Amino acid sequence: MLILVANCGSSSAKYELLNVEKETVLARGVVERIGTNLSSIKHEVKSKDIFWKRKMNCPDHHRAIELIRDIITDPEEGVIASVSEVMGVGHRVVHGGEKFHESTLLDEEVIKGIAAVSDLAPLHNPPALEGIKGCMNIFDKVPQVAVFDTAFHHSIPEYAYFYGIPYDFYTRYGIRKYGFHGTSHRYVSMKAAEILNKPLSSVNLITAHLGNGCSICAVQGGKSIETSMGFTPLDGLLMGTRCGEMDPAVVTFLMQHEDMSVDEVNAIMNKRSGLLGVSGVSNDMRDIMKAMYEGNVQAKLAYDMFIYRLKKYVGSYAAVLGGHVDAVVFTAGIGENVPDIKDQVERDLKPLLNGGTKFLMIHTNEELLIAQDTYKIISALNK
Amino acid sequence: MLILVANCGSSSAKYELLNVEKETVLARGVVERIGTNLSSIKHEVKSKDIFWKRKMNCPDHHRAIELIRDIITDPEEGVIASVSEVMGVGHRVVHGGEKFHESTLLDEEVIKGIAAVSDLAPLHNPPALEGIKGCMNIFDKVPQVAVFDTAFHHSIPEYAYFYGIPYDFYTRYGIRKYGFHGTSHRYVSMKAAEILNKPLSSVNLITAHLGNGCSICAVQGGKSIETSMGFTPLDGLLMGTRCGEMDPAVVTFLMQHEDMSVDEVNAIMNKRSGLLGVSGVSNDMRDIMKAMYEGNVQAKLAYDMFIYRLKKYVGSYAAVLGGHVDAVVFTAGIGENVPDIKDQVERDLKPLLNGGTKFLMIHTNEELLIAQDTYKIISALNK
Repeated sequence: MLILVANCGSSSAKYELLNVEKETVLARGVVERIGTNLSSIKHEVKSKDIFWKRKMNCPDHHRAIELIRDIITDPEEGVIASVSEVMGVGHRVVHGGEKFHESTLLDEEVIKGIAAVSDLAPLHNPPALEGIKGCMNIFDKVPQVAVFDTAFHHSIPEYAYFYGIPYDFYTRYGIRKYGFHGTSHRYVSMKAAEILNKPLSSVNLITAHLGNGCSICAVQGGKSIETSMGFTPLDGLLMGTRCGEMDPAVVTFLMQHEDMSVDEVNAIMNKRSGLLGVSGVSNDMRDIMKAMYEGNVQAKLAYDMFIYRLKKYVGSYAAVLGGHVDAVVFTAGIGENVPDIKDQVERDLKPLLNGGTKFLMIHTNEELLIAQDTYKIISALNK
Repeated sequence: MLILVANCGSSSAKYELLNVEKETVLARGVVERIGTNLSSIKHEVKSKDIFWKRKMNCPDHHRAIELIRDIITDPEEGVIASVSEVMGVGHRVVHGGEKFHESTLLDEEVIKGIAAVSDLAPLHNPPALEGIKGCMNIFDKVPQVAVFDTAFHHSIPEYAYFYGIPYDFYTRYGIRKYGFHGTSHRYVSMKAAEILNKPLSSVNLITAHLGNGCSICAVQGGKSIETSMGFTPLDGLLMGTRCGEMDPAVVTFLMQHEDMSVDEVNAIMNKRSGLLGVSGVSNDMRDIMKAMYEGNVQAKLAYDMFIYRLKKYVGSYAAVLGGHVDAVVFTAGIGENVPDIKDQVERDLKPLLNGGTKFLMIHTNEELLIAQDTYKIISALNK
């Protein structure tokens, strides 16, 4: 069965067409810089040795979805003869608030529910909704499913997701920890259970998604019970351009002493901080490590901070898991490709964790899990 | 040798007169509500069974120091015949910035140094300086020593005290983790080494100062290598009225959605949050526990959050200490008086920490350590 996976950001629409039983990708690509004069589409079909990028007029997400439909059904460069071969569309949605605990078949009610928490993810939920509406028009007979980044973390207990501010702010605005990267943490948890050859329901894991955004998750019996991102994806580990955890009083100190607005300080914490801000070199770990080996002291500091925070979270989550950790899992760009980081964490934490803890690098595949969730929900419909 | 210890806050001046060799307190008390119509002095002399509070006009800290001199030398209610019996004055100073790594004999240069970091502790350093100047006038022949809350944390490594924001903000404003409660963490570390019957230089400890303000510290060989308070005393554990660690994006979200100023959001995070804000009951752990046992669910939530965060920090600091922890120490109001909290942390973390870790409740005594530091510095002067 073929499932189209759509991941719409503020100015981009990623797509991947998968055969969900075979776990293969037929085509993938991205429409970029939507709504600008520089919009373009990238398209890749491995089986046909196609991999190109073309300028393409694309004023909005609706048009982006049309472009995706056109290219995947193109007789020369596409992979299917007609849209009727697509049996379902799975959408990545960043924020499901407290309402959505699992992947959900999209209807008007669910769309309203996603719109209702847009305040919590103003940069992410509105474009996802645009993509959903576009797909509902263009793939109009095809069931559509929303897969939420936050859903996996629904099992985090109240004492772990509450912040220490007046209770009232939770009631009025939903200010609490939500956590993100849930689809990735869930995917690698399942893979880790396979590797450990244990049922998911009986493994304790610490999963570290280390990409440009980074988060870490304590997984008990296959369920998330703690994670490092919070109300927003800013909190926790040091990231490419995000500061991660920080004394909240630094925010107000900066605003006062630099005469910054809320938007300005948010932009600094989200776009100019992290590895980039500390090193002054780059947001990319490869550049940081290169600069470090060339003797750049700020790059060394950024690298050391990255690992140190990671170690602190692993220790903290080992406590959350009651001292029993089957494996620490490293995934995403940095997690899958920088063995030095895994090795140092392993070396330094072996004495704390009992000898039985494995340290694993596992490739994540959020698109596959989105396709699988979509497939499951569609299959249940047809029964 | 008699040492006077002074601890001046924005509207109060605490004093304690100690015999440093005998480790006894001759008199103690506090001038409160300085600069208001309600100013008063409390005075306690155990040996004379004196313990009272009197209204007393006190417009400023200089006058507060005069009142303290008058009462300790009072023929009826005092404990010494003349100020000449006071051989040194030790001052608690909250913030020593990066300049002061240890307790320091006060002179004009040091006073300037303390004033220079007043920006980092605008509520604390200015009144401490008032108290210092008052004592220099009133006890004018007596050497004076500054003992800094931050000094013990000077040994925290760079990768642990840096935040993930642009490096520049460190250079320009000194934005970094400083840590506080250093005198208390240092005192109980020494006591714990005695109890463990090991040299301080070879013990690894996690010390939790749990009072109205709360902080926790990883101590390696007698030196602080990590602590939970940060640039300010707002960060880290859940406290009486302070929120502790929180996604920094919550600060800007609140400002935006509640149309709050920097001062307003700071006031909420510092004075209306923590146990008080979550429970809606009280900032006092005794009230929280009472309400919890009576079935108040928000009080239960606040209590659970308090312990959960504590456990996460202990796990994290066990990782920082490389898995080797001789003891976890509980001190200050809550730490010394609520065995339930120690017991739950102990029960839940025993499986993570190796069997050799002790869980100790130790009475802190910052005034005694301030007096001892003062005594040591004065003794060296006379050699």
